[in-house]
Amino acid sequence: MPTPLDELIEALRCLPGVGARSAQRMAHHLLQRERRGAQRLARAIEAALTTLTHCARCNAFSETTVCARCSDPARDATLVCVVESPADMEAIEQTHSYRGLYYVLMGRLSPLDGIGPKELELERLLERLAAPEVREVVLATNFTNEGEATAHWIAERVRARGLAVTRLARGVPLGGELEYVDPATVAHALIDRRRLDAT
Amino acid sequence: MPTPLDELIEALRCLPGVGARSAQRMAHHLLQRERRGAQRLARAIEAALTTLTHCARCNAFSETTVCARCSDPARDATLVCVVESPADMEAIEQTHSYRGLYYVLMGRLSPLDGIGPKELELERLLERLAAPEVREVVLATNFTNEGEATAHWIAERVRARGLAVTRLARGVPLGGELEYVDPATVAHALIDRRRLDAT
Repeated sequence: MPTPLDELIEALRCLPGVGARSAQRMAHHLLQRERRGAQRLARAIEAALTTLTHCARCNAFSETTVCARCSDPARDATLVCVVESPADMEAIEQTHSYRGLYYVLMGRLSPLDGIGPKELELERLLERLAAPEVREVVLATNFTNEGEATAHWIAERVRARGLAVTRLARGVPLGGELEYVDPATVAHALIDRRRLDAT
Repeated sequence: MPTPLDELIEALRCLPGVGARSAQRMAHHLLQRERRGAQRLARAIEAALTTLTHCARCNAFSETTVCARCSDPARDATLVCVVESPADMEAIEQTHSYRGLYYVLMGRLSPLDGIGPKELELERLLERLAAPEVREVVLATNFTNEGEATAHWIAERVRARGLAVTRLARGVPLGGELEYVDPATVAHALIDRRRLDAT
């Protein structure tokens, strides 16, 4: 029978990026130096598991059926930004330059991992986008092969319904030096070049 | 008030090596893909916190007052190996070449972090080593500045009591190529060179 210590080490391995050795180090740390932190962690997991569900509108984690962001009347409900993860949503929020709503896919199309449109519940997204106030869908999935494929799948369906579909711009990052930016990015920056109008 | 998600992210940061971004990724992973693993983790933490204490003899984590290893009559009780952590103890066990007992310091002397002999409870170690059956103390703290200082502190006290004190050998690791081993290690390998007797 495994000891409580073995069981704790094994249980810690469900965390992403945590292998046998890190799990062992974490378990010792929790028991030796962070018993209060460990207690707090156990309670936080229980609380999160029991109280958090997915927002019925944006699919992000929420304590309420519809999350605070989706219920905020100050937000522009004609815009829906589609992201892969809550972390991506936060990345966009931190720009303070978007005031529309979101839809969080909680993943991306990844046929090799068996994640197709059904597993991602993309029909739910299409239903959400069918709301009459929606005018534009901003596709903000990542610029990886899988993120691009996901954006492409959604764009095709959404365009067919007569909604405007946009994608985040690709280009040279701020502070980027052309010499060190990969050629594909520079190529996109050339293709999407903007006219500088006199101001 | 922080949401249960914020609280979970914050609580995960008590794990060693987990910063804000990893904690966020871990929380999303637990809630999205590993709800059963998360439940198991919460229970494992609770169980470990309530059932594990320190073995009265070796100071390692144990469910019983004296751990199974210290109670094993097949072990050589004349030898006590002093290590910094349970992980170090396991590293020595995995060699299958040591059959004595252990003492786990659960740390090392580190004046800069405010960890002196009192914080490490080194008097407890000395009491343990005062048991009449003990003949030799094998110092297996790490070969870092702090580990060496810890070994030195213990060696001085233990020698004064007439016990044999040994230290793990330093030298070129198996498969080590001299060209790539640091000079200090090679120097130690030279100083501690062994005579090859004809067999």
